[in-house]
Amino acid sequence: MTAPGKLYGVGVGPGDPELMTLKAARILGAVPVLAHFRKRGRFGHARAIVEGFQQVGCLELALDYPLTTEVPFEDAGYRSALTEFYDATARALASHLQAGRDVALVCEGDPFFYGSFMHVYHRLNGQHSVEVVPGITGMSASWTRAGTPITYGDDVLMVLPGTLPFAVLIERMRTADALVVMKLGSNFGKVRRALAEAGLAKRAIYVEHGSMAGENIVPLDQKHGNEAPYFSMILVPGRGRCL
Amino acid sequence: MTAPGKLYGVGVGPGDPELMTLKAARILGAVPVLAHFRKRGRFGHARAIVEGFQQVGCLELALDYPLTTEVPFEDAGYRSALTEFYDATARALASHLQAGRDVALVCEGDPFFYGSFMHVYHRLNGQHSVEVVPGITGMSASWTRAGTPITYGDDVLMVLPGTLPFAVLIERMRTADALVVMKLGSNFGKVRRALAEAGLAKRAIYVEHGSMAGENIVPLDQKHGNEAPYFSMILVPGRGRCL
Repeated sequence: MTAPGKLYGVGVGPGDPELMTLKAARILGAVPVLAHFRKRGRFGHARAIVEGFQQVGCLELALDYPLTTEVPFEDAGYRSALTEFYDATARALASHLQAGRDVALVCEGDPFFYGSFMHVYHRLNGQHSVEVVPGITGMSASWTRAGTPITYGDDVLMVLPGTLPFAVLIERMRTADALVVMKLGSNFGKVRRALAEAGLAKRAIYVEHGSMAGENIVPLDQKHGNEAPYFSMILVPGRGRCL
Repeated sequence: MTAPGKLYGVGVGPGDPELMTLKAARILGAVPVLAHFRKRGRFGHARAIVEGFQQVGCLELALDYPLTTEVPFEDAGYRSALTEFYDATARALASHLQAGRDVALVCEGDPFFYGSFMHVYHRLNGQHSVEVVPGITGMSASWTRAGTPITYGDDVLMVLPGTLPFAVLIERMRTADALVVMKLGSNFGKVRRALAEAGLAKRAIYVEHGSMAGENIVPLDQKHGNEAPYFSMILVPGRGRCL
């Protein structure tokens, strides 16, 4: 009888392959199956980061998200399509594990920090051996590339998804010392207005494609237009004690 | 004339040496000077993580914090001792850089996330070539080891230092979906009471020495006593959309 395989949820970091951990690189070079999420027809970002780290002859399992455009999460059809997708993903991964093959499912950033991986984790952990490898987050890469410490001393850091309603954004922004706003995309204009309302616009830094090709980092008030790509965020560094 | 050296602020991650990045390992293997903070008489945590990664013949520069016990930051003597310490540290690093030697100053976790490095960075950046390498944070390691995703979908994540006053802790805790409370130590009892007041105690997980020797992870209500070591934190995972 074949011993069952192990699933690795491997955080591969923000973009620069050198920001992968030694552990991630070791696992990627050893597993017989490399799995990755992608939007249909595109080469996924996590998959692009790990190119060249996989072993020769490694099998690939591409997991195609059912939808490629932004649809409100409240949409029942979208929810049910995604639920089916994660169910099918879990079955596909489980069949490899049951056949005794270890699988590395690669994830941008850190698997447990706003990722898709957790939907797989909740389905397979317990029934199968699962190990998670943390990764450098996109926000760490962004404040590093922006050359600004994000938190000092007793600063409170708040991470806000730009998808929240305008009024909620303002209220939350007012209670933080340091801020990271993610998931900008079409929410960019709303987020910018909320930062202005909260009195934080002047301290804000816009980071687009941090640590990736096409990197662009400017003070927020020098960013033109009200659109931002998915891989962008806004940072408001803390103002805690500086010695 | 010798070309000036470069200062690397190298995040070495939370404890497990394999959670260092490929970039950190490459730099540590190449620099002629390895610098590290420590409390007088102790082998620093960051220094312990990188043991074996430095090149043969590498010089070591141990930077001894002036005080080893917890003193309130408001204490003027403490502030001035620390200010002098960072000034002296900057001068010691600068002398190596001016002599043409690259220096890696190793930092636990991520250098720009609640670190001592930023005090050095603000003194030397601009006058010298400085590059920061992000690292896996202690909080990433903690939620990974606890086996719990920290944020889902539109969750707001708040990172709180346990040093904040009781009333402030409660108020902030009430506005977050997911929480990380750091800097526990002698603040542990206060933080635990604040979590209870905010109605979050039952969802809280206590993580001691995450990814290190002596790791201990339990639901908060199973943690005995009101003391916690420096390398401990409390996590309250988000409850966002789960598909």
